[in-house]
Formats: sequence, structure tokens, C-alpha cells
Amino acid sequence: MKIKKYTLKAYAMGIDTHQEPIVYMRQDCLICHSEGFSSNARVLLETNNKELIATLNVVRNEKLAPDQIGLSDIAMAQLDTFAGQHLTISHAPVVSSLGFVRKKILGLELDKKEITQIIEDISKHRYTDIEIASFLSVCAGKRLSIDEIVYLTQAMVSCGKILQWEEHEKVFDKHCIGGLPGNRTTPILVSIVSAAGLIIPKTSSRAITSPAGTADTMQTLTDVSLSMQDIKRVVDKTGACLVWGGAVNLSPADDVLIRIERSLDLDGEGQLIASVLSKKISAGSTHVLIDIPVGETAKVRSQENAARLARLFTQVGQACGINVRCLITDGSKPVGQGIGPSQEASDILAVLGCKKDAPMDLKERSLILAANLFDLDNGQGIEAGLEKAKSILESGQALTQFNKIRAAQGQIKELTSARYNHQEVANKSGFVSHIDNRKLARLAKLAGAPFSLNAGLRLHVNAGSKVVKGEPLFTIFSNSTGELSYALDFYQNNSDIFNIQE
Amino acid sequence: MKIKKYTLKAYAMGIDTHQEPIVYMRQDCLICHSEGFSSNARVLLETNNKELIATLNVVRNEKLAPDQIGLSDIAMAQLDTFAGQHLTISHAPVVSSLGFVRKKILGLELDKKEITQIIEDISKHRYTDIEIASFLSVCAGKRLSIDEIVYLTQAMVSCGKILQWEEHEKVFDKHCIGGLPGNRTTPILVSIVSAAGLIIPKTSSRAITSPAGTADTMQTLTDVSLSMQDIKRVVDKTGACLVWGGAVNLSPADDVLIRIERSLDLDGEGQLIASVLSKKISAGSTHVLIDIPVGETAKVRSQENAARLARLFTQVGQACGINVRCLITDGSKPVGQGIGPSQEASDILAVLGCKKDAPMDLKERSLILAANLFDLDNGQGIEAGLEKAKSILESGQALTQFNKIRAAQGQIKELTSARYNHQEVANKSGFVSHIDNRKLARLAKLAGAPFSLNAGLRLHVNAGSKVVKGEPLFTIFSNSTGELSYALDFYQNNSDIFNIQE
Repeated sequence: MKIKKYTLKAYAMGIDTHQEPIVYMRQDCLICHSEGFSSNARVLLETNNKELIATLNVVRNEKLAPDQIGLSDIAMAQLDTFAGQHLTISHAPVVSSLGFVRKKILGLELDKKEITQIIEDISKHRYTDIEIASFLSVCAGKRLSIDEIVYLTQAMVSCGKILQWEEHEKVFDKHCIGGLPGNRTTPILVSIVSAAGLIIPKTSSRAITSPAGTADTMQTLTDVSLSMQDIKRVVDKTGACLVWGGAVNLSPADDVLIRIERSLDLDGEGQLIASVLSKKISAGSTHVLIDIPVGETAKVRSQENAARLARLFTQVGQACGINVRCLITDGSKPVGQGIGPSQEASDILAVLGCKKDAPMDLKERSLILAANLFDLDNGQGIEAGLEKAKSILESGQALTQFNKIRAAQGQIKELTSARYNHQEVANKSGFVSHIDNRKLARLAKLAGAPFSLNAGLRLHVNAGSKVVKGEPLFTIFSNSTGELSYALDFYQNNSDIFNIQE
Repeated sequence: MKIKKYTLKAYAMGIDTHQEPIVYMRQDCLICHSEGFSSNARVLLETNNKELIATLNVVRNEKLAPDQIGLSDIAMAQLDTFAGQHLTISHAPVVSSLGFVRKKILGLELDKKEITQIIEDISKHRYTDIEIASFLSVCAGKRLSIDEIVYLTQAMVSCGKILQWEEHEKVFDKHCIGGLPGNRTTPILVSIVSAAGLIIPKTSSRAITSPAGTADTMQTLTDVSLSMQDIKRVVDKTGACLVWGGAVNLSPADDVLIRIERSLDLDGEGQLIASVLSKKISAGSTHVLIDIPVGETAKVRSQENAARLARLFTQVGQACGINVRCLITDGSKPVGQGIGPSQEASDILAVLGCKKDAPMDLKERSLILAANLFDLDNGQGIEAGLEKAKSILESGQALTQFNKIRAAQGQIKELTSARYNHQEVANKSGFVSHIDNRKLARLAKLAGAPFSLNAGLRLHVNAGSKVVKGEPLFTIFSNSTGELSYALDFYQNNSDIFNIQE
């Protein structure tokens, strides 16, 4: 017997259900009735060339006609449909890879075939949010073997697009395991190493839980949503790019997983490695430098964990056929003075422009990372690499190269100022013994970053600074008085963000 | 910092979001704007005497006025509000017990305080579905220690109501670890032992992953949603009851957990024990018999696992102050001929009515369980118990008692027939060497059980039967052609459900 399929006309409900596609059908519509659909059922929607599995909410809603099916915003987008299009509706097929998730729940190791199937189904939106949460939870902590991490990485690569650079033997990349406000080294080091001829097509993410991602920061300086074709063109021209990875569908399963990880505030070691390396491999990289800042309030909190992570990163990279080097760095305090997209961009321009007041820590971190990339390329050692990087930066070649990349990506944007700002001063004299990175990030987010690109903070002190009572600690930038006062409220109640010892 | 609170008027959206409360706010409403609310945010709604945490969906919906907040059906019900009531809206507070969930995710053992806090928050609907899924997944398999299972059981008891039977020293109960289609012994044995004077106030669950739970089956025969007061009245009158446990708020956290377990098709050992025993302790039981069927396609698949489960059940029972006996039984094949609520009810009536065509296996299993309860009471041995049970059943006393219970619960319902049925026949001659219980249950569920009470299956053969080509194997019952064809499609692709050897 053939499974019956019915058609209904798409109707945009105008409901933002975040990332989980929801469809709405009338209680009394033919299909609910004859198919026995009830709320929470999983239904398959098909157009001529696309399909989507969504969760059903039954409605008593006179707005929806009996021959219509309502779609939430994300359902409309994922199915790529339009109001009035006829959609074929049926029961969603059984997702057999859920059996493998249960196997993992029982504590058994998964093989390559099983992980590949799970990731393919996730990337095609066949899992519900709770199914993804279940899978991620039993993979979190240290629950994935090295083989499983390798399979996971490879599966995530193979379900998305892959950038290819046939004409280049070595393709470089860099990633920082976040958690450090203001640590925006990427645009600087990319400019330095590409000025020296290294190929570094850098795709970055937007902020996940931080006040700015590299893509957010770059967006204040140039266009970042480039097509595959445009990325190729920019890299052909300049040897580099600084674009948003989300626009080119690299490792789409990762985008699905990250959203649930964020909701659960989960940070699985295996998941982290697979997430980072799958993006790098998809971007066609052969040589990847990983920056792992360690600090009490950074993402990685102990040297031991950093060393373990570094070992795993290297091993998984090797198994996937790429060369990975990890650098464990100081993650005890913020880097640079700006926090938030525009403020960080301003620091980047100061370093590249060799301004007197440019943040030295940001400059030094960028140079050491660039030096490691040079060494990864030519094996001539960090010392030599450092000298080369310094000379390229201080001669102005890096700035020229940065502007060349910006122009190639579409335009050279001027930075704008936030509508409101407010300065907070030290309430006593002493030295700043400690800054809480997590709360500082929270403060910048309350001010409106990263959604307001020019909202954020500018630090006038850092850990180790001496301050006199009444001297400025930081300036806060915001585009609405509501956000500004909300952020200041938070600061009043968390004055331990800056720990000043007398 | 003072958290700002705003008020909006409740508006019933008429959207059934199943069990997860969703609220809808306009993109341009004051609160979304000034509080920075976006979709997927967790918001706290308050009336004068109730509060609810719900997930936000932002809408561009001209139906909703700027001063209104839309609520899904379950949100309206859980907050116990009405259209037009002013609700106070704010950011949901941080649920601190989620930190303990993360601890468990990292593989650490939880203490009593931590588990109690998690369960209290879950019972008060403070967790999102994905958070519950995460917790359940990392407690599944064998991931809970015996201490954790005891704490979980006690926490689940203490967050709900407790039935008390001061006038009775011994209060009996029985539970079967499912997985065996058609194994509906409970109504039979409850009738037998209560006819002999044992007190057995039986609360049952609805189906979790099976095509019918005892509560579903009993619903086809009488009322099962009784208040605490009515249960007391029925038990005072008859010594027994056969009601749905969910209506009386025993172990409410369990109800929340079970719904996610069902979605994930999860069955954690610790979760299972806590779920079963918390219901029994809340129901005031002192002596509990657990039936553990073992078979290749039953829930428990090996003697070893059954013995482990039996040991854990007994230990946790003891730690919680009740007497638990486990019986490991044959779970290799379905019991009775009916699968699905009405079909199983029909088998029960046949056994109690001592009909000639009553399924012998169902009768025998019920007798041995009743015998064990008699022995648990008087210690006179299984042999004596078996004779006593047999005489009560065969004399018709059990049927009389069953009808007395049905009448006391509200009414004696007649069974109804499903709208559609279809018979499948053997495609060759031979003997049925094997029946796949899991796939058989799946087939009955695809036909609409348990939500359609009279949907399901009637078996015309069992494992060991001889069949001639063309003879009926089973009849399938359904109330929609869609479900019928979907189920038959599944059967066509899984013809190994009945393994016929020539």
C-alpha cells in the first residue's frame, strides 16, 4: 500500500520559532483528521525540489484556512517556499540513526557509519531539538573517543560544501578557543602573513556567547557575507579573505549543533574539536594554528585541560590529513582596549596603523601567532618568524594588505560612533589585581553588542594597572538609554568585575 | 539590581504546543524592545497566585495587540489564567540546578541535595524540554549509582501528593516492566487478590513507548481519571481501584520526565526504578511485586540484566522503606491476542469471564502473579496461593469484583469497534518460530494506539503456532485510512515481524 500524501497551501504565520521549524494545521483540516495528526507529530513537507521535517502545532485559528498549512519563519526559510505554494504533507519517515544515539546513550562507542548517519540526519534537520540535546549531552564532557571525534569531524565536513584551492599546496588558517574579550588578533595576523605570500582564506563565525565574533568586527570595516565565487575572487587577488563562514554553508551540521549547545551552555571537548576542525577542513585548509588561552575566567581554565585539548586537536587533525599546531597562551585578562565589534575594529586599525596608543598586548599576540604561521610554513623557527612579522607590520605593508582585502571584499567602511556613552571611574586608589572576563563580556552584551555593532566597552585599565581614585576605568557605548541603564545596573551590582587592591 | 517588570494582557492563541508552554509577543511591543527579548528567551509570567516559565516566540501578528501576550493552550492551563487577565512579565530567573545537570554531564555523581533541587525544578516546569532531555540522557543506561537512584526516588515522592491508608497495615501493588505487547495482567490479578481481601489501590500510567498502558486499557472499560477523594471512596468500598495515576498528582516530576523519555524512546535503568517506586510509595504501598519479562525483543533482554534490575529494585525499595519482590518471567512472545487498549480489554474480559477462547497465557500469568501477592501477604507458599487464585477466578468471584470496581469508579463501559480493519495472511505454510515484540508494538502504534483507544492488533497466531499459507496472521484496527496504510506499509517493509519457518 502506498503512503498517501496530501497537499496544502503554504501560509506564513509570522511567528519566529527561533531555529526549530514549526508548522501549524487546523484541528478540523482534512489531513489532521484522516492522518490522525496531533500536536508534536513530526510531518514531512515537500515541494518539487526540497523537503523539510517539522513539528506540528494544531491550531484553532480562524486566520488559517482549511486548505492552508502555516509555517514559522524558519520553516519558510528552510523549505525555501512562498505563501500560496502547494506543499505535499505526510508523516515524517522514521529516522533510523536515532538507534545509534540510543547506543551512545547506553555508553557504547559508535563507528564511522553510525556517526556519519547521525550527522547527515542532523544536517538535514531530521532531528528534533530534544533529540539533538540528547545526542550532544552523551557526547559532552570527555565522552567521545579519539576515533569518534575523527568520525564526527569527517562527517561534519562531508555533509556541507568544501572550498578547494587546487593551485595552492599549502593553505593556512587560525582559530582561537574564545572566552577572552577583545582578543581580535585574526585580522592583524591574516594581513601580516598574506602580505608575505601565505594563502589564508579566513572564514569566521559571528559571536556565539561573546560580545563580538571576528565576523561581527569585520562587518564594521567591510562586507563579510560573500558568496563562494566572491571568496575565490578575493583570495585570488589578495591571497586572503576575512569573511563570515555562515554565508557559504561550510559544515552546516555544526550550525545546528551549536545552537543547542549554546542553549544548554554545553562545551563538549569532542564536539568543540569537531566543530572547529570541520570548518577548517571545509574551508580547504592544510595548516591550522589553534590559539588556546588559559585563565580562570576563560573558556579553558587549567594548563592540564589546555594540554589535553592541544593533544587531541593535533591527533584529530593528523587523522583527518591536516597539520594542526596548538599554542597555549595567557587567558588571564582581556586583550586590547575595545570590546564589541566597532571598539575592537578600532584597536585593529590602531595596531595595523602603528599608532602610538595602539594596544601593545594585541600587537604582541598577533605577532607571535603570525610568527608561528611562518614557522609552520618554512620551519625556520619562531625567532625568524617574529622578525619577519614585525617588519611587515611596522613597515606598513600589513595595513596596505588589510585595506586591499577590505576593498576586494566590497568596500572600506568608516567606523561609526554609538549614540550614548558613559564613563565609570575607580572608587578607590590601588592596582587592578583581577578582571572577570565573563562578567565583562556580559556587560558589553547588555550595552547592545554584538547586535548593535558600535555598542560595547573601551577599557582604560587592565589587570596589573595602577589607578588613582576618580580615574576612568572604562567607557560604555550604547545606542539606547534603556540598554545603557540596564548595563550600568549590572555593573553597580557586580563591581567585582574590576578588583582593585589598595 | 532591581529587575524591571511589565504587565501585558493574556490572550489565548488557540495553539496546541503539546506539553511545552509557549508565549507569543509582538516584535514591536514595549517589553520586547526595552528588555531585549528575542525568540527562544525564557520568560516568567506571574498572576497574583501563580507563576509559569515559558519560552517566547516573537510574532509579527496583527491579531495580537501591542498590550497583549499570547499563550499556547498548555501555557493557559498551567498558569490557570483567562483572556484579558493582566500578567506580569519578566526575564526568567536563572535555574541554578542546571549547574548540577552539567556536573552529571561531566560524569560526576550527584548528592541528595543536588538531585532534590533538580527534581523540584523539573516538577515546577522550570526546565525547557531540551534541558530535561539532556538530564535524562546522561542518567540513562547504567549511569546512576544506587544512591542516586534512591535520592531520585525520594525526591520524586516528596514533590507530589502521597496517598495514606492509616487503617491498613499492608497495602499491595504490582508493576510490570513493559515491553511485552498484550501483557495486561493487572486488572485480572487486582480483581483476584482484592476479592480475597487484600488492599490494592492500583494507580497505573498511560503508555510510555508501548501501544497501551493499563490506564489506557482501563479507560475503555470505566472511568480512570479519579480524584484523590474518589480513589479513597472506591478503595473503601472494594479494597481496590484501577485508576490513572496522572490525575492525582502522585510524583508529578515523573509525568514531566516520562513525556520526554517517550519522545526519545529512552529507558534508563535508574530512571525506570525511580519512576516505578516513586509512584508506588506515593500511592502508599508497603508490598510491591515487580514482574520483569525477559526476552530478545522485550524491554529486558537478558537474564543477567533482569537479575541486576531485580537486585536494584529490591535494594532501592528497602532504602525507601518498602518490601519489593521481583519475578523474572518469560518475555519471549506477546501475551494474549489483543494489542492496543480496546483489544487488550477484550482479552481481560474473556479471562475474567472464563470464556472458552480466552487467552490461556494471559490467564496463567495473572494467576502466578496473584499467587505471589498471596504469598507476600501470608507466607504460605506459591502453590497454596496458586490454588486460591484459581478458585477465585474460576468461580466467577474475580469477574464480580472487577465489575464492582468498574461501577465504583463511575460506569461500566461497553467496548467500541475501530472504523477500519484489515486482515493479513501467511504467505507460506510452516510454524511461527519467532515474533518481534518491538516491531509488533510499533505496528500497533502506527495504527493509532494508544491515542485511538480502539486502534491496534488482534493476533491469530503466536510464537510456536503452525500456519497454512493463506491463513490469517493478524487483524489490524484503525480509525483513519492514513494510519492504516502507514501501518501496512511498515508491515510490508518488516515482514520479519512474524518469522515463519517451513
